[in-house]
Amino acid sequence: MPIVKVELWTGRTKEQKAELAQAITDAVVNIARTTPDETIVIFQDVDKENWSKAGKLASEW
Amino acid sequence: MPIVKVELWTGRTKEQKAELAQAITDAVVNIARTTPDETIVIFQDVDKENWSKAGKLASEW
Amino acid sequence: MPIVKVELWTGRTKEQKAELAQAITDAVVNIARTTPDETIVIFQDVDKENWSKAGKLASEW
Amino acid sequence: MPIVKVELWTGRTKEQKAELAQAITDAVVNIARTTPDETIVIFQDVDKENWSKAGKLASEW
Amino acid sequence: MPIVKVELWTGRTKEQKAELAQAITDAVVNIARTTPDETIVIFQDVDKENWSKAGKLASEW
Amino acid sequence: MPIVKVELWTGRTKEQKAELAQAITDAVVNIARTTPDETIVIFQDVDKENWSKAGKLASEW
Repeated sequence: MPIVKVELWTGRTKEQKAELAQAITDAVVNIARTTPDETIVIFQDVDKENWSKAGKLASEW
Repeated sequence: MPIVKVELWTGRTKEQKAELAQAITDAVVNIARTTPDETIVIFQDVDKENWSKAGKLASEW
Repeated sequence: MPIVKVELWTGRTKEQKAELAQAITDAVVNIARTTPDETIVIFQDVDKENWSKAGKLASEW
Repeated sequence: MPIVKVELWTGRTKEQKAELAQAITDAVVNIARTTPDETIVIFQDVDKENWSKAGKLASEW
Repeated sequence: MPIVKVELWTGRTKEQKAELAQAITDAVVNIARTTPDETIVIFQDVDKENWSKAGKLASEW
Repeated sequence: MPIVKVELWTGRTKEQKAELAQAITDAVVNIARTTPDETIVIFQDVDKENWSKAGKLASEW
């Protein structure tokens, strides 16, 4: 604990994920008073045809 | 808000997802009194070997 | 299958949830070609202090 | 109900998932007093580059 | 890793959760070849008015 | 998009959540190249009796 799940569009690089995992972990540790070892971040890539806002798939925007 | 996540078996077409995103968004907007722009629908495809009911994978049914 | 999870702000009535569950189930059955018995809808109430957009909690808007 | 979601690293075989689905279903039925037919288990494979602990992606360990 | 999330109806006792957490952890460790320390189980209580099957809330059954 | 879900133990204050929402949003916007308005953060409080590691509920540690 804590567990952070990040859903973002497919296409972010491994470098972006690595940097983001570090930044989120730092924020959680500093603000929520936990330890790095207890902080898990999971990324989930979402294709644009699996994401809709206002009733329209992002692949159609 | 709201966020609607739909888990369904792999194989639904983009056309089905588009139609379903629109129908769910309409229902949420009308019944839960929100706006289309605040309504997000996310689909998640699940393979039959990743889904079990009564202890049996759907790929084995 | 399918499983639909709906996150919405705390405060929707049981009547709204009942109507929304029926409408979403109808849409899923008709469009994704499944049966009502296989269609599960789960609601999750989210307090405004647990929801942020653009870095601001909804309870502060 | 209940619904059990299992996130594990990509690479587990179908045989492992089948055995795990059965074991988890048995545990849930016996301990939480439900029926097998009401017990759903969903697996979600997570790549090591999508998983971080202590701010480091598992693909970099 | 792995992370197991169990959604069940409100009303299960702490003793049932403790027993279920142990049983699921044992199954995951033995079958998916991981260690107990890496295995997290999270329970989420769901009220019957937040759960629908075939378009009907469980609180109305 | 993106949507970030943070599960943490019950007891964090609204001030901590507000600060954490801002910090995570900043990280996501800067690193994943999105806009603040598209970045949603949701907190989910988890009681210690609903969380297990190595087969033991956190309420029993």
